[in-house]
Amino acid sequence: MTFRATRLAVIGTGLIGGSLARALRAAGACGEIVGCAPTRGELARARELGFIDRGETDAAAAARGADAVVLAVPVGALGAVFAAVAPVLGPDAVLTDVASVKQSVVAQARALLGARLPRYVPGHPIAGTERSGVDAGSADLFRGQRVVVTPLAETADDARDRVTALWQAAGARVEEMDPRRHDRILAATSHLPHVLAYTLVDCLAGMPDSEGAFRLAAGGFRDFTRIAQSNPAMWRDILLANTAELLAALDRYEAGLGDVRAALAAGDGDALLALFTRAQAAREAYAARAAAPGDA
Amino acid sequence: MTFRATRLAVIGTGLIGGSLARALRAAGACGEIVGCAPTRGELARARELGFIDRGETDAAAAARGADAVVLAVPVGALGAVFAAVAPVLGPDAVLTDVASVKQSVVAQARALLGARLPRYVPGHPIAGTERSGVDAGSADLFRGQRVVVTPLAETADDARDRVTALWQAAGARVEEMDPRRHDRILAATSHLPHVLAYTLVDCLAGMPDSEGAFRLAAGGFRDFTRIAQSNPAMWRDILLANTAELLAALDRYEAGLGDVRAALAAGDGDALLALFTRAQAAREAYAARAAAPGDA
Repeated sequence: MTFRATRLAVIGTGLIGGSLARALRAAGACGEIVGCAPTRGELARARELGFIDRGETDAAAAARGADAVVLAVPVGALGAVFAAVAPVLGPDAVLTDVASVKQSVVAQARALLGARLPRYVPGHPIAGTERSGVDAGSADLFRGQRVVVTPLAETADDARDRVTALWQAAGARVEEMDPRRHDRILAATSHLPHVLAYTLVDCLAGMPDSEGAFRLAAGGFRDFTRIAQSNPAMWRDILLANTAELLAALDRYEAGLGDVRAALAAGDGDALLALFTRAQAAREAYAARAAAPGDA
Repeated sequence: MTFRATRLAVIGTGLIGGSLARALRAAGACGEIVGCAPTRGELARARELGFIDRGETDAAAAARGADAVVLAVPVGALGAVFAAVAPVLGPDAVLTDVASVKQSVVAQARALLGARLPRYVPGHPIAGTERSGVDAGSADLFRGQRVVVTPLAETADDARDRVTALWQAAGARVEEMDPRRHDRILAATSHLPHVLAYTLVDCLAGMPDSEGAFRLAAGGFRDFTRIAQSNPAMWRDILLANTAELLAALDRYEAGLGDVRAALAAGDGDALLALFTRAQAAREAYAARAAAPGDA
């Protein structure tokens, strides 16, 4: 199926929404693209960059008359936007989102979308950078990347197919799973690493000798903590929306750290070597798969 | 002071030793460069790459007659190499190492170098990659990077000055500190992050759904865990050689994780936002300093 929209509405013109609009524009998949952002300045910039044709600061005004609506706002703002667009969504339009958590977002959609629930296909593109804002996007952000969709029992087949085609038109590889599995996996691969990176930087900043420490922090530290430059309010909202799965991942992680601590305290080199060797092999297998994404 | 060696001996021709030999060769700072590696194959390759003139599989044979000797072997092998080179080290030669820990290495040097102790200047270049081996090096690895030297009370001034000049000839910026401060800082900026990255990958590999998890692991995870591809035996030895400082850093880190856990469990968004905002600001200040190394 080839995705085509007469009018696409992108609610949120930041890194993710802006990149998707750029990609679908580049693919020639849309007639008109309407953007929604909090300020006239951002909308003017998005028009100047050419990825929207018209801007609205009101989500309902942007979504009205669109046959495809993408909600690319922070998790904490999604409830208000569901409520705003539900009354104006056409009966054949499709609605999707890009939030990094799915169970709590699906619960909000169930509460707020009413008769339009079958037109909603929860989605999450596994792509991004620590940058944000209207200038941060790129038409290639999703090329070759995974997008998870988590259709509900109520989701209409044609809506699911159309949202799948939308992401494929942006170059992404779409994978279906249930919201719980998504949230459990992302807690481990994304939400927990953000907690670990923020905590490490904060620990270093709290050392009496933090200036000397940052001066001697090299490439490993730099890569490890890049994600600690991510937007704090956005990540607060994501983590609070996935607390149960994140706390479970944190439990497993702290148990793992406990094993390392015990081995260090006992001078047990064999235990450390076994753990590091397992981890190195898993990381190398991951790197090999990531280098050959077509086979993954 | 300009560094100049009639004969430089590099014991260990891997990433660090090989890069230093390449850099000093490129700087025209050495007459002859003698390399020492465990196998004839590595030595032949190092000659082929042009960064050594002569190869020895025996450390004493390589160090004999050299006026500067660099020990670039894994931490776990340093004791044996100190013992091997001490008897053949000339009275005016200088000796340095590149180990990532200093207190325990200094203790070994005190026990093994005897009358040559004043010629020894402990060192640690804060540079590297997750790669290793004779082909991994580069003449530019240390350019603009920090090298810590931790002279002892017994260290001769001319030896300290000459080792400082050696690293400067390789393009590095040399900083002096005492071994304890070095080990405390490196525990926080390097040793702990390696533990965290190995543990995260091992946690993910141990999930029932690990195949799905690795498939959805994106750029943040990739950067965060790059260092988990580092050599497991090398890191076992480094961590066991800095256990006291590493356990103290791990204590502080686990306390920090405990704060995050409590905030998550209580749904305390303000506490999370405060921590993430502090960390983001510290990480951005670090990135800004790293981008302007001359001012750091």
